[in-house]
Amino acid sequence: MLMRELIEKKCAGGELSESEIQWIIRGYTAGDIPDYQMSAMMMAIFFRGMTREETLYLTMSMMHSGDVVDLSAVNGVTADKHSTGGVGDKTSLALCPMLAAEGIKMAKLSGRGLGHTGGTLDKLESFRGLTTSIPMEKFFREVNEIGFAIAGQTADIVPADKKLYALRDVTGTVPSRPLIVSSIMSKKLASGADVIVLDVKTGSGAFMKTEEEAFRLARDMVEVGRGAGRKMAAIVTDMEQPLGRAVGNALEVKEAIATLKGEERGELLELCLALGSSIMALAGAASDENEARERLLRGIESGAALSKLADYVEANGGDRREVYEPERLPLAPVQLEVKAERGGYVAGIEAEQVGRICLHLGGGRAVLGSGIDHSVGVVLERKRGDAVQSGDTLAVIHARSEAEAREAETMLRSAYSIQDSAPSPRALIRGRV
Amino acid sequence: MLMRELIEKKCAGGELSESEIQWIIRGYTAGDIPDYQMSAMMMAIFFRGMTREETLYLTMSMMHSGDVVDLSAVNGVTADKHSTGGVGDKTSLALCPMLAAEGIKMAKLSGRGLGHTGGTLDKLESFRGLTTSIPMEKFFREVNEIGFAIAGQTADIVPADKKLYALRDVTGTVPSRPLIVSSIMSKKLASGADVIVLDVKTGSGAFMKTEEEAFRLARDMVEVGRGAGRKMAAIVTDMEQPLGRAVGNALEVKEAIATLKGEERGELLELCLALGSSIMALAGAASDENEARERLLRGIESGAALSKLADYVEANGGDRREVYEPERLPLAPVQLEVKAERGGYVAGIEAEQVGRICLHLGGGRAVLGSGIDHSVGVVLERKRGDAVQSGDTLAVIHARSEAEAREAETMLRSAYSIQDSAPSPRALIRGRV
Repeated sequence: MLMRELIEKKCAGGELSESEIQWIIRGYTAGDIPDYQMSAMMMAIFFRGMTREETLYLTMSMMHSGDVVDLSAVNGVTADKHSTGGVGDKTSLALCPMLAAEGIKMAKLSGRGLGHTGGTLDKLESFRGLTTSIPMEKFFREVNEIGFAIAGQTADIVPADKKLYALRDVTGTVPSRPLIVSSIMSKKLASGADVIVLDVKTGSGAFMKTEEEAFRLARDMVEVGRGAGRKMAAIVTDMEQPLGRAVGNALEVKEAIATLKGEERGELLELCLALGSSIMALAGAASDENEARERLLRGIESGAALSKLADYVEANGGDRREVYEPERLPLAPVQLEVKAERGGYVAGIEAEQVGRICLHLGGGRAVLGSGIDHSVGVVLERKRGDAVQSGDTLAVIHARSEAEAREAETMLRSAYSIQDSAPSPRALIRGRV
Repeated sequence: MLMRELIEKKCAGGELSESEIQWIIRGYTAGDIPDYQMSAMMMAIFFRGMTREETLYLTMSMMHSGDVVDLSAVNGVTADKHSTGGVGDKTSLALCPMLAAEGIKMAKLSGRGLGHTGGTLDKLESFRGLTTSIPMEKFFREVNEIGFAIAGQTADIVPADKKLYALRDVTGTVPSRPLIVSSIMSKKLASGADVIVLDVKTGSGAFMKTEEEAFRLARDMVEVGRGAGRKMAAIVTDMEQPLGRAVGNALEVKEAIATLKGEERGELLELCLALGSSIMALAGAASDENEARERLLRGIESGAALSKLADYVEANGGDRREVYEPERLPLAPVQLEVKAERGGYVAGIEAEQVGRICLHLGGGRAVLGSGIDHSVGVVLERKRGDAVQSGDTLAVIHARSEAEAREAETMLRSAYSIQDSAPSPRALIRGRV
């Protein structure tokens, strides 16, 4: 096979075969196909797209470019959840314990935050002493004994994606749907779960700006996952504003704990119930989603879900008292209340801008590998649709210093838009696939 | 500037500015922009195209990537002719002396043959002792004193094109019109002539298979040349069958000499008169093309044109007697007449196949740098539209051995198609731009 001829075939609108796609991914991963040919192919795919068969073959070839996690040692149905990335998205922290309490085995290999979006591992490390770098045997044991585990990738999962994503990033081919689908789904499939539920974010703070794009991406990913023999569902959710109230590592952990205690019953709970009931229904652990919701809520009321989080924290080197007494978690030295300068209604809170504020406060990283401050961030007291009077607290900034808090205040004011009339209501859950 | 952002701009259908295009070409030529970003940009251009302004800026930036020939030392109007490449195209060998005899200064930097198309330098080197590797001062002196010179490129003309073409060749972006236009025109503009006339080939033996493609390419190239301040014209000519009768270096030289002697009055003369009269009219050397044709024909009758070729051969180390007595030129040891096996009309002769036969006989090179045999090739006695009877000679093969001649015969039979009825006539000159 000649790579040039395969590029020409795709340029002309042709369909690549399974063996051609396998040959390309193997050759590229091995370094036999040079970057300059691969970037030309990616650009041809950007313009010509891929059929559902090509997308499936690409995903499967990428999945098999490295280690594939074998979850057969786990008893019961294994499940995984993936979000396409948003600001204030602490869903895994609450969802995994909720599902574990219902007997679903959640085996999550997760990542670190970069830029304006946070990472689940960083959030978990707000618990003092907790480590997410654990051997795979310990990971499997926790999934079996506690019912969930969240850890960093120690296995060499989808090396083809690491190489391809770096290339796409500098050659303008990140926003190609089949390439996004194969990048996400190859990693999810390699992580080994039987049931996979996707949370595709849409809106100005998400990668998919329009609902149409988000639904198409969701449908394509579900199709590929089913093609690979997994039980799949996806929901499309709003990312016009940050999810829930807290943005910042320990602050988000506190919101998750409050949700698991039943004290906080806002967007985070709504999203966890939607994702969790979908997973339970697909796993055959509930007869329908309504029954699943009831059981997930009962797990909160009984304290079973919170107890699962405490078990996980303890098993990984943390102190379970921080779960029951979250005031023990890191707290920033400065709290600054941002007051409304006029009355009206909150019409929107720019998610990306709030993410940048958290980064600016020291709670995120601009480049991979740098350290972060788990205590800093923002708690949004007023969200879209809320009425405010002049002088009301819009949000509370948690900062390392007064000066940084003041800078963050200026940035936060620009993120809020307040208008005279109430904005039209906008549901968090935009739809299901 | 960031290359990634410029790629994204072109992907989105945006128009690159003059300074952006200059930055890209300078950065790529200097090695600051990596191949993998440039191939992605080329592919984005393949799909999005370029406006006429972008194509002009690209051509000018490429032209200025290396040496630009300064022809100001030449007295009078300088002219150049470019063909997009065909089989049996020996036009320069006859056209340059014809125009030199009329006072037009032809300064041609030419190339070697590769694959199934021959190169003018290889054809000229059929004259024993003749060298086309001459210093630029000698090249200018010959243009001034003889009226024309044809030499290999010693100057570093358009290094950006060498690098870009090699990249396009392996990444599937050769057939992009703005990239073809800038590749050809940057070199023509850097060669310095005031008047440039293009011969764009069309048909199964040409790069542009359809007339529509050929006319669009011709128009785009003329537009770019005029944008750069040159006097431009183009003609689109047929390459369904080889041009004229001879294919092979010394055989083509003999056909050019026969044309300059007035003995051969076929396609080669027709094409030389069309290109030559166009150049003379643009140069202001004739009041119109009809007058120019008359004068070019008189230069043949008077022997002035043939004398110019002899002067050139002598000036470059060859023997002028080979011009007046072309039987002195290299002759292959074997001549094999290919006889028609049935009667009818010649419906077509596949140009590419005839080019491959010449290559196979040793008259061309499959890879750059290999040696060639100047004596071998094919003389086509019957061409499209000619009536033949069984046993008539279709063509004569000139070969190094009987065995090679027999192989070539088999290949040549497959190149000829003979049918019962006369094919519809097809003019050599398809149109002008």
